[in-house]
Amino acid sequence: MTLSTSDRARLQAFLENTRENTESYLGYPVSKDFEFDDLVEFLRYPLNNLGDPFSDSTWRVDSRGFERDVITFFAEMLRAPENDWWGYVTNGGTEGNLYGLYLARELLPKGIVYYSQDTHYSVAKNLHFLGMRHIMIRSQKNGEIDYDDLRETLRARRDIPPIIFANIGTTMTEARDDLKKINNILDEMAFSQRYIHSDAALCGGMAPFMDPRPAFDFADGADSISISGHKFFGSPIPCGIVLARKCNVDRIARSISYIGNLDTTITGSRNGFTPLVLWHTIKSLGKDGLAARVQHSLDTASYAETQMRHAGISAWRNPGAITVVFPQVAESVKQKWQLATANGESHVICMPNVTREQIDELIEDMLATPVANK
Amino acid sequence: MTLSTSDRARLQAFLENTRENTESYLGYPVSKDFEFDDLVEFLRYPLNNLGDPFSDSTWRVDSRGFERDVITFFAEMLRAPENDWWGYVTNGGTEGNLYGLYLARELLPKGIVYYSQDTHYSVAKNLHFLGMRHIMIRSQKNGEIDYDDLRETLRARRDIPPIIFANIGTTMTEARDDLKKINNILDEMAFSQRYIHSDAALCGGMAPFMDPRPAFDFADGADSISISGHKFFGSPIPCGIVLARKCNVDRIARSISYIGNLDTTITGSRNGFTPLVLWHTIKSLGKDGLAARVQHSLDTASYAETQMRHAGISAWRNPGAITVVFPQVAESVKQKWQLATANGESHVICMPNVTREQIDELIEDMLATPVANK
Repeated sequence: MTLSTSDRARLQAFLENTRENTESYLGYPVSKDFEFDDLVEFLRYPLNNLGDPFSDSTWRVDSRGFERDVITFFAEMLRAPENDWWGYVTNGGTEGNLYGLYLARELLPKGIVYYSQDTHYSVAKNLHFLGMRHIMIRSQKNGEIDYDDLRETLRARRDIPPIIFANIGTTMTEARDDLKKINNILDEMAFSQRYIHSDAALCGGMAPFMDPRPAFDFADGADSISISGHKFFGSPIPCGIVLARKCNVDRIARSISYIGNLDTTITGSRNGFTPLVLWHTIKSLGKDGLAARVQHSLDTASYAETQMRHAGISAWRNPGAITVVFPQVAESVKQKWQLATANGESHVICMPNVTREQIDELIEDMLATPVANK
Repeated sequence: MTLSTSDRARLQAFLENTRENTESYLGYPVSKDFEFDDLVEFLRYPLNNLGDPFSDSTWRVDSRGFERDVITFFAEMLRAPENDWWGYVTNGGTEGNLYGLYLARELLPKGIVYYSQDTHYSVAKNLHFLGMRHIMIRSQKNGEIDYDDLRETLRARRDIPPIIFANIGTTMTEARDDLKKINNILDEMAFSQRYIHSDAALCGGMAPFMDPRPAFDFADGADSISISGHKFFGSPIPCGIVLARKCNVDRIARSISYIGNLDTTITGSRNGFTPLVLWHTIKSLGKDGLAARVQHSLDTASYAETQMRHAGISAWRNPGAITVVFPQVAESVKQKWQLATANGESHVICMPNVTREQIDELIEDMLATPVANK
């Protein structure tokens, strides 16, 4: 398995390129301060976490033992009901959301999904995929769901079980929908059948360490939660975890003879490397390390917001958010720092690896290239 | 990011375990003769092939250029119509099948999916997921779809557009449905609207090099094809490719402002490492290397079938198959060699790395532990 000289040169140039592009981005919620040399050897084997992480399997080239540890760690962190949780390591936040919505559909086939207009675009795609009825709710200015609009919309449909898709950190402003407020509204209208999915792609890794703790997890009324592994935690390969109430999962499980396994996951063959990545992070940082990581990001975000305002840029952020929002920047600045932009706004996301020096440089660039030139 | 001594010991023990378990399995269609040391450095970066591989993106820490090369290679190999193909690197065969069926549903919302009873269990799950009407067709004894049953079933539903889910290598016996025969049946009944998806998980990597060449690809009438990357080609992380006619994909594309990208893939964040793996294999082996790889597997399969028959075991295989089927073995033999077993049958799959010595040893084990003891 050897490459030609030209192919090898191309790969080398690409590596350099990747190194540079990784250094400069500030606009995506993707950590880059990781190092998994301990795991490199595993690339020699065809690890495949076939099927359910909690069942036995004939196939043994897997890391499902580590996957179970990862899921167990998150179950505790997300205050899952004792002995009534199940989950697996996904290929990313979208798969976790798809799983949560799928579960909801199976449990409440006639339900309607309610979600705010700031919801990630992939959710509309998921809903179309699953053929689920859905209603978009207005957002507040900060990106949080408009509870009044939600209440009024639900009031008109009290005969239909509601499925709430809650954002625990929207894509553009990191706004968090409040599960306590949502549950109060559902209680007000005495809905006995309901389902709440938390899309905690970015914030799920941070919220358990925040004070005040956002209302987003199982103890706050979630029935399933999806978190990205490559965002707050950091991973060379996109991944995530999804957790759900086991009693619900059991109702939709199908027994499969072929792999001697219950087939409860979305894909059959599953990545066995990323569970090791997540396990490594959890074990090497521990809860204290993760908490420090959150604090560091919040401090950087506070710095960025303050410095921008001092520079006359009308920057703002949601309480407890590491995302700082400001008016759309010039195209050259957007390209240089790989800033996601929508509806006239750009943002930096102060992931643990973002430095104050980078923030200073970004502000210099913004001032040097006025918006009029964009 | 350092692990404690005990965690490090656990990881080391797991590595040993993985090495041993990888050496012994014969029952799964997963190659293990790979070596990607050239790619190890990329694990330091958060590669993410966000969105469509063929569109521009603000995010630049990606391997989409390599992904396009991989897809282009397969488009040629699978005789895709010139300038009318599109595809991406998936997380495995299941995702590719889901994509093909999703496309079919969008194009023919009232269609019925026909598939044989030997189809992989994940397909029924996919169909349920997508809410598609479907009818299971009988299989012939060798695992191939029963064309007479297909014809009769279609005849009774000539007002409904047919969607054919064809197996190009079934899970248990590696039987291949013949797209020419299927298309003849559809022609007979003058179906103007039709869709054919080829699930070529295992055989898609081999069939282009076989003589006679199985009827399975775009030139034979397929509208989409899914192939696994971790099966015939070999990969430390499950992956695959899916290809479809571009004119069909364009009809369902949705424009997304957030990532400055057309969102045509199933997941948003996508693995950027596995496209490098596939690229490396294609470039280092080349077409000749791949052809030799196929021939080696076929030779081993022929050897296994012959030796088993000499030993009095009623083994058989489909023409041109690398899967050798025989009566279910004793539990201890099944465990030792990680043999998948269903409906009283077991099989070995002669992947490129399977040796004649292993076949000999398996036969010894089978003879030493008679079926009566199972």
